[in-house]
Amino acid sequence: MPTISIPMLNDEMGAIVKNYVDSLTKPPGSLGRLEELVIELAKMTSDPFPEVARPGVLVFAADHGVTAEGISAFPQEVTKQMVENFLNGGAAINVFSKYIGASLKVVDIGVSADIEQDKLICQKVRYGTANFYKENAMSIYEAIKAIQIGYEQGQKMINDGINCLILGEMGIGNTTTSSAILAVISGESVEKLVGRGTGIKSEKIIHKQQIIKKAIYERKPNVEDPVDILSKVGGLEIAGMAGAMLAAASNRTPILVDGFISTTAALVAKMISSQVTDYMFIGHRSVEPGHHIAIELLGKKPLLDLGMRLGEGSGAAVAFPLLQSATLMLKEMATFTSAGISN
Amino acid sequence: MPTISIPMLNDEMGAIVKNYVDSLTKPPGSLGRLEELVIELAKMTSDPFPEVARPGVLVFAADHGVTAEGISAFPQEVTKQMVENFLNGGAAINVFSKYIGASLKVVDIGVSADIEQDKLICQKVRYGTANFYKENAMSIYEAIKAIQIGYEQGQKMINDGINCLILGEMGIGNTTTSSAILAVISGESVEKLVGRGTGIKSEKIIHKQQIIKKAIYERKPNVEDPVDILSKVGGLEIAGMAGAMLAAASNRTPILVDGFISTTAALVAKMISSQVTDYMFIGHRSVEPGHHIAIELLGKKPLLDLGMRLGEGSGAAVAFPLLQSATLMLKEMATFTSAGISN
Repeated sequence: MPTISIPMLNDEMGAIVKNYVDSLTKPPGSLGRLEELVIELAKMTSDPFPEVARPGVLVFAADHGVTAEGISAFPQEVTKQMVENFLNGGAAINVFSKYIGASLKVVDIGVSADIEQDKLICQKVRYGTANFYKENAMSIYEAIKAIQIGYEQGQKMINDGINCLILGEMGIGNTTTSSAILAVISGESVEKLVGRGTGIKSEKIIHKQQIIKKAIYERKPNVEDPVDILSKVGGLEIAGMAGAMLAAASNRTPILVDGFISTTAALVAKMISSQVTDYMFIGHRSVEPGHHIAIELLGKKPLLDLGMRLGEGSGAAVAFPLLQSATLMLKEMATFTSAGISN
Repeated sequence: MPTISIPMLNDEMGAIVKNYVDSLTKPPGSLGRLEELVIELAKMTSDPFPEVARPGVLVFAADHGVTAEGISAFPQEVTKQMVENFLNGGAAINVFSKYIGASLKVVDIGVSADIEQDKLICQKVRYGTANFYKENAMSIYEAIKAIQIGYEQGQKMINDGINCLILGEMGIGNTTTSSAILAVISGESVEKLVGRGTGIKSEKIIHKQQIIKKAIYERKPNVEDPVDILSKVGGLEIAGMAGAMLAAASNRTPILVDGFISTTAALVAKMISSQVTDYMFIGHRSVEPGHHIAIELLGKKPLLDLGMRLGEGSGAAVAFPLLQSATLMLKEMATFTSAGISN
């Protein structure tokens, strides 16, 4: 793994931009959260007129051996089928990426089947994780490799010119994996964290909770060690997203986090390097109950609250226009002086 | 005033679109509010693939005689100056309209000064309202005329091709006017409704509350009669917005309502023809305390909650990408069948 060095926020630039925002032709503070967003962006980017006009969506796909325990409403093969849907442009994240003008990259970091497609970035660490109800999800080496691949793919998108990174994922069973990771990190009860996932019924929720509880009891992940947690109850796409977030923060590139899975990855990234959260916005509050807890642990406030729970990066992409609106406000509005208005 | 005939929502089309949304490649319901939005749009427009891709922003500007009582943080001349700012492209609503690709029209329906600008639609009913602390704000004739102008301007934008109407306003003092109207309509205490407006301090809030209470006591607006309320404690831009909303609903054109002033206008429109609310979305929840009450009276749920309180239509314009995202989801996503995915 490369040495991770995340720069401090530029508070001085934040103060400069705050002053400038107050000179724009509107009552001070009247654009609420949009004003805060652009000040945060200025601190992140060190730019008096920060831009996010070239967003990139990076989707990591992987399978989860724990699906063998019947914890998901969809069969495992849907991961592969949805990746093909991404590559053919038919998924929600394709539609929203296109609308916001984002470049979209899909990384196979551990789908359990081979996918032959030129547009797919194939960086498979293994064919899905092992079933963590019965054994460790992956080796320590594989967990580190997945983080590293994520870091490299994030860095590559930034080198290619994106200036805002949206993380997405696809992996049938990954709300179970995220719930297990979050239960370990937060110390909260599994009952409090586990909801409907992609849409399972209540008897299945109890089953899902029992699988997670037993898995944590058996695997005994070390709460201090993010790589140990990933290797025992983790997912390859979650490791990849965490790595990509670290790359973005290292480059002062704002990160737009999506829902439950993505926020769990953010918590893993935070354990690796706590300053990474300085560069994060949370796109939306998911209906997944664990998401509220994960957001609180990150110390963040989501932008949207629209009852979404799809993943893929969809909620973050839908929230992106708020960041863009904030930067345009700063760049294009007149000041009281330039417009000759009584202040 | 033209006879107002608002068509019923097309519930059958809503059911058709709901079924289709459930066939798209995502777990049913997982796009939350976006799914509801597109179903509502289908009911409004009677279109199986509703579109909002040509939004129009219609801003009404007028002055308020009650500013003589010192209820605003800004002097009355700022209304004219901000209208000029709109025409020169420097205000928040210009920036957000441009970003969402909306056509923007500004109507002088009662600014207290003359504004010479080709781009301005001059439909001045009078030079600002009278000070309703001391006399009726306008005549019954003027109130009707302002509604009618609003209706005509809304109809004109629709004739010109817009398919989603965003209403905005500018008028120093208009939170006082809106609070007075809302106090009459809701029966709530003025203390509960009156907040900071564009940014006044607490002793001024008490003063503002007293002015409103005394005005309502003296003018005795008839709670059953929207035109009487407007003439006694109303504003010309509020009447204009109400008229434009009625025009949009008559044409099955979705209406995106902004903040406190705009929602008060929506309540006035509802009193004129209650079905108008079928065609409304509320863009955001403002920090103005009366806004919560106004939204509840409309029976709506705002899309955003970002601590905004600028007006001009800015919050609605910032929320617009959510409507657009919902329509694109419907139009562009693959179905389980077309993508060959196990459902």
